Amino acid sequence: MDNFSEKYTKEGLKKVIDALPLAISVIDKNRVVALANKSTTLFVNKDKIQLIGFVGGEAFGCIHHDDAPEGCGFGQECMRCKLRQTVLDTLENQVAHQMVETTMVFKDRGERHLRISTLPMTLDHDQVVLLSIEDVTQARLLEQTRLEKQKLTAAVETAGAVCHEINQPLMIILGMAEMLLDDPGTEDEGRLANLMQIKEQAERLGEITRKLMTLTEYKTKPYLKTDILDIDSAAGEDTPVDG
Amino acid sequence: MDNFSEKYTKEGLKKVIDALPLAISVIDKNRVVALANKSTTLFVNKDKIQLIGFVGGEAFGCIHHDDAPEGCGFGQECMRCKLRQTVLDTLENQVAHQMVETTMVFKDRGERHLRISTLPMTLDHDQVVLLSIEDVTQARLLEQTRLEKQKLTAAVETAGAVCHEINQPLMIILGMAEMLLDDPGTEDEGRLANLMQIKEQAERLGEITRKLMTLTEYKTKPYLKTDILDIDSAAGEDTPVDG
Repeated sequence: MDNFSEKYTKEGLKKVIDALPLAISVIDKNRVVALANKSTTLFVNKDKIQLIGFVGGEAFGCIHHDDAPEGCGFGQECMRCKLRQTVLDTLENQVAHQMVETTMVFKDRGERHLRISTLPMTLDHDQVVLLSIEDVTQARLLEQTRLEKQKLTAAVETAGAVCHEINQPLMIILGMAEMLLDDPGTEDEGRLANLMQIKEQAERLGEITRKLMTLTEYKTKPYLKTDILDIDSAAGEDTPVDG
Repeated sequence: MDNFSEKYTKEGLKKVIDALPLAISVIDKNRVVALANKSTTLFVNKDKIQLIGFVGGEAFGCIHHDDAPEGCGFGQECMRCKLRQTVLDTLENQVAHQMVETTMVFKDRGERHLRISTLPMTLDHDQVVLLSIEDVTQARLLEQTRLEKQKLTAAVETAGAVCHEINQPLMIILGMAEMLLDDPGTEDEGRLANLMQIKEQAERLGEITRKLMTLTEYKTKPYLKTDILDIDSAAGEDTPVDG
């Protein structure tokens, strides 16, 4: 039919499957693991002998495997399990699924983020599911860290722009207010109090811009119907930097 | 040796390899493609018959395949090609590589971002390289879009916090300045001009906060040794929103 791999023996092909950088397994119509490559054994931290021939949840070390007296796959959590749903849907409805993301808790390894793909196949007259599992826990963490860093950068760059725009008008207001207070030309207490207010509020604005120049983490707080940066939590401790 | 896949025939294993959601190929010591699964043929948009037996660059449709008169792999670009380097290093030094990211230009498909893994193997007495190629172009674009969105969110949340903090002091300054201008208690032109300056600069600050409430994209400009948000480019066109 095709010339692919005619060159290689069955042993060779087994070696190729075993060497794949993806956890590959074949699940049969009884939800039993019929084939599992080396990446799969590494992923579930088991020997092949503990994997092949066992039902899905047990083989993969799912924490909910023995939740229900009826056996693996019948617990309450199992009904919500995306890995189970995806494999069963492929088995029953002959539908392939690509890159389904889910989170599972394993006995040995705790919570992991997985990306699974399934394909219905007929293998030597059996209806089976080809299951690929990619553990993306690490990649997700990395992406999250990168995202947080970028958000802080964006906040710092926005704060920088704000300070740049605000500083000059603020300096003028403060300078004018101080000049007028030095030589107010009036002794009216109300007017003097108003001038004092201007100066004080301008100084308050100066405080805010100084705080903005010391953002060290990205933290928000709810405000009205949205979130806003929590400047007090986000700013480094009282170490104003000269803008 | 292991009980894996004893159940399945060579045809079955070939089917499994063909069904993998990853472009898998075996490259022999002459850099010739000796095995390629269906994902690989889809990836390079060729039949297996155009792939197996052909040298790497030609098989994969590399745009630089016929750059040099000496043949595929000898062009100037080839020396910089990470796919070639990685495969050759695995072949010559028996070193595995995992998740190497690179960008390649293909005849049919233009520029693609790839993530490649290689593993040295002995397959039926031949020294070969197992090569896995994942096309992450789409995933990268998605991540980039997500990142840009998060940066804009961070800028909007920072701007929101700034406006929230600035508005009250600013209103007080403006109110006091207007009160003083209505009834200045002096006819000294210098003092009046100073009061006018305070009012004008407070209005300028008000303009800045209004602009900050209309950020619609994340754009920066260089400032001193860093970047700052380019408020004028980032703000929506003159459609001030009431904070």
